[in-house]
Amino acid sequence: MPERIAFPAPLAAASAASGSASVLVSGTIAYDDILTPSDSIKHALGGSGSYAALAASFFADTRLAGIVGSDFAVKDFERLKKRGIDTAGVNIVPAGETFFWRGKYHENYNSRDTLETRLGVNAHDRSPLPDAWRDSPFILLANDEPRLQHAVIAQLRAPRFILVDTMNLWIDTAQAELLRVTARADLFVVNDSEAQQLTGESNLIVAGRKMLKRTGARSVLVKKGEHGALLFHPEGMFAIPSYPVTALRDPTGAGDSFAGAFIGVLAALDRVDFAALRLAALYATAVASLTVESFSCDRLESAGIAEIEKRADEIRDMTRIPK
Amino acid sequence: MPERIAFPAPLAAASAASGSASVLVSGTIAYDDILTPSDSIKHALGGSGSYAALAASFFADTRLAGIVGSDFAVKDFERLKKRGIDTAGVNIVPAGETFFWRGKYHENYNSRDTLETRLGVNAHDRSPLPDAWRDSPFILLANDEPRLQHAVIAQLRAPRFILVDTMNLWIDTAQAELLRVTARADLFVVNDSEAQQLTGESNLIVAGRKMLKRTGARSVLVKKGEHGALLFHPEGMFAIPSYPVTALRDPTGAGDSFAGAFIGVLAALDRVDFAALRLAALYATAVASLTVESFSCDRLESAGIAEIEKRADEIRDMTRIPK
Repeated sequence: MPERIAFPAPLAAASAASGSASVLVSGTIAYDDILTPSDSIKHALGGSGSYAALAASFFADTRLAGIVGSDFAVKDFERLKKRGIDTAGVNIVPAGETFFWRGKYHENYNSRDTLETRLGVNAHDRSPLPDAWRDSPFILLANDEPRLQHAVIAQLRAPRFILVDTMNLWIDTAQAELLRVTARADLFVVNDSEAQQLTGESNLIVAGRKMLKRTGARSVLVKKGEHGALLFHPEGMFAIPSYPVTALRDPTGAGDSFAGAFIGVLAALDRVDFAALRLAALYATAVASLTVESFSCDRLESAGIAEIEKRADEIRDMTRIPK
Repeated sequence: MPERIAFPAPLAAASAASGSASVLVSGTIAYDDILTPSDSIKHALGGSGSYAALAASFFADTRLAGIVGSDFAVKDFERLKKRGIDTAGVNIVPAGETFFWRGKYHENYNSRDTLETRLGVNAHDRSPLPDAWRDSPFILLANDEPRLQHAVIAQLRAPRFILVDTMNLWIDTAQAELLRVTARADLFVVNDSEAQQLTGESNLIVAGRKMLKRTGARSVLVKKGEHGALLFHPEGMFAIPSYPVTALRDPTGAGDSFAGAFIGVLAALDRVDFAALRLAALYATAVASLTVESFSCDRLESAGIAEIEKRADEIRDMTRIPK
């Protein structure tokens, strides 16, 4: 059993006596070729589901639903299983090709171009979820085609909290379908440019508040890269800075692992109130900061609980305002 | 006597029994013509010294040193005096013209062009400070020509804390003189693009840490506009978000009033430790958010203690991470 973050008693007190509740992550599983201003990598394990499930696994029992081709390497399954992730919901398509993405980051790492996408098996419909998984309480619909996200929602029997992530492509090409998904979301996560794209508002505060109304999501989190994140909740706003990363290597998966850690913390606490969301954003920030320090999931996989806790503590220290 | 912020006992405990220590603000006093994407104003009271002194006056006894021409209106002196600001150190040059600036903000309010500058009396050397002012403990060298900032430092007998502000123009044209000033600074305040300009570093964490070494300042604060501010201190980093402004009208003076409130809080506390600097950044953020909601100093002048305290409390709430 891989190590897990243990939460202090006060917040975790309400947790189920049986331990943390299960997380179901649905997302893409991919191989990535990545170019950054200083380095490159080929055929690296990626995809929103891979990053998110690995991140969630530091906090709670994690189930991963997705799809791969027969080219998917056993060693990559092993990487997921080593962190305790249940991959029974990953469809393997005979003679299919795993989703492939090739991208290039610009000089400042803040933007990137997609050079090539081969959807491969990712365009296929998925098999139904394993029956027991339909009772999963904590759901992350990691970035994927909204039609596929919706198909997962339709199978859920007792969702307690649904976190929805997306990307600019779906806002452009499948916005109506996306809004059908976000209407079911307890938390909808976007980055700053996506928030502006969805609302036409350049002021992020206005954009965030508009999204609460427009998307139907109960709360909205706007990620601002190096500037941290803003959480818009019916009870108010929460602002958290990013962890001070100085060894940025590859931003790929930062958002996915943010979302994965977020849902993992909620499951570990078995709570979904505003305070729990704040704590989830803290750990999500810490985990995402590890992801970007290496290519692929390497740093994320090798991170220990102690490292995650240390970064969370540093962020606490950084934000402390004296009485 | 205008109203003042009273700080809670624990932090203010070390304050001089005689009340808060004096703040000396040295800076420009100007008339501004300003164009924003939605509105414009002509001949409005501006200048780094005006904004900063008004902001400081909410927290401590404030002295303003600067220079104006004989066109400077008595009513504008009255505006400063009404907030208890001592203007004995403002030189009045007969037949001189007060510093004039005309600028235009771009669509997103994040950048601006200077359309016209008439230095007028601001190019003159200043009279020596009133003798008693040379003992002022809390000094703000608001944005001005570094040569003039240095001339103020040379007159100080017992500075306890020197805060230095600047702008991109001086980094471009008078960097050596500026570094002579920052070498005496307890805190050097810049915005994100100035930090990048000074260090050649796009990563703000790296840039901030480099500035600690390169500028000689004991601590450095990087303002990031809507994304808040980062304080780099020998004891660590502090990050604070901006107040969620949705009614942005004119960003002019935001940085000046941030610096003014900052030094005012330190004087009110009569403390210069890391915790005091954090608290100063909180109030500075609250005050700057008021400044940008009107043209000129109008909103800043009319702000009451209750409004400032309310915004400071909101920022505290926004940043609270549960245990």
